[in-house]
Amino acid sequence: MELLDALNWRYATKKMNGQTVPQDKVEKILEAAHLAPTSSGLQPFEVIVVTNPELKEKIQAIAYNQSQVTDSSHLLIFAAWDKYTDVRINSIFDHLNAERGLPDSSTADYRTRLIDLYTNQTSQQNFEHAARQAYIAFGTAIAAAAELKVDATPMEGFDSSALDSLLNLSEKGLKSVTLLPLGYRDESNDWLVNLKKVRKRREEFITELN
Amino acid sequence: MELLDALNWRYATKKMNGQTVPQDKVEKILEAAHLAPTSSGLQPFEVIVVTNPELKEKIQAIAYNQSQVTDSSHLLIFAAWDKYTDVRINSIFDHLNAERGLPDSSTADYRTRLIDLYTNQTSQQNFEHAARQAYIAFGTAIAAAAELKVDATPMEGFDSSALDSLLNLSEKGLKSVTLLPLGYRDESNDWLVNLKKVRKRREEFITELN
Repeated sequence: MELLDALNWRYATKKMNGQTVPQDKVEKILEAAHLAPTSSGLQPFEVIVVTNPELKEKIQAIAYNQSQVTDSSHLLIFAAWDKYTDVRINSIFDHLNAERGLPDSSTADYRTRLIDLYTNQTSQQNFEHAARQAYIAFGTAIAAAAELKVDATPMEGFDSSALDSLLNLSEKGLKSVTLLPLGYRDESNDWLVNLKKVRKRREEFITELN
Repeated sequence: MELLDALNWRYATKKMNGQTVPQDKVEKILEAAHLAPTSSGLQPFEVIVVTNPELKEKIQAIAYNQSQVTDSSHLLIFAAWDKYTDVRINSIFDHLNAERGLPDSSTADYRTRLIDLYTNQTSQQNFEHAARQAYIAFGTAIAAAAELKVDATPMEGFDSSALDSLLNLSEKGLKSVTLLPLGYRDESNDWLVNLKKVRKRREEFITELN
């Protein structure tokens, strides 16, 4: 099974070698994020792809100087909606109905319920929910990279407020949640590459109620 | 590419036919969740697998009566740690070091920093962080099911407090975050099966900074 092989092959690469990931592979990794399921199909997040070297250096400085930020060829930034709004929700359903050739009335009740639900929550509740959806796509992107034998390092260790300021994400109503540098492992200089992958014992992870 | 084919094949199945998913496939789906990367490798969540029919009926009643809960053969429940504790974090690192044959000193500084970090946060912050990690695994489990041509419905629509009570999850320090019924689509009775899969336009999802 390709997915399990890929998940076993991957690891959180600590040292990359600077080699460039071909664009067609990057596109497939982005497509895996794009196709990820999300609550009500709202896809409440965006992905920013940074290849600019100066910009990567600035981001490295606010990411505990982790070397993968600059040794990767493509740095993906997952940024979630700061809140749900009627404009955003309507835009998603207008596009859905247009693509399916259905009248607006077909989803009118559902979108009204969603708008009521989210606009009665706090912005923080909205954002936490949107962030969770981004993490589903983060997971499928990590799996896609591994299937393509592209290394990737899931990262939460960065100053998200500083990154949001650097990239003017607040103006777009976004808040950065995770980074995913894409590149290739530097086998001779990565302390983690040869250590055993360890997960919890099955009985501490799975409970069966039969 | 198998993962993209799988993500294109899958959809949020609305009506399942009651057929049973073979146990070897369920195990692979669970293994995809088990192998998912998590922050610092803490895997701060568990998966509960419900096959008991009476229990599924009780869960359906607190999940807006969605039919997939009882028409699935296996209902996966993803439940995140309610908070991070020194006991939990130490247990993970003790196991890691034992599996790698490394002394406790090899991770002592790192685990101390993690314990400081998390125990200085509120329980709610801990839980939101743990929930995000569960969503990475939720994503890889959904992808695994699709690769195996097993249908699955990602669900947030249920009363998580009622479910936590029903399964005594609070006693285990867990809070349910998502459901994933596994089964097979009932093509003739599922209103969604033949509708076009729609995602945001690429330009509304991806920004490139070159």
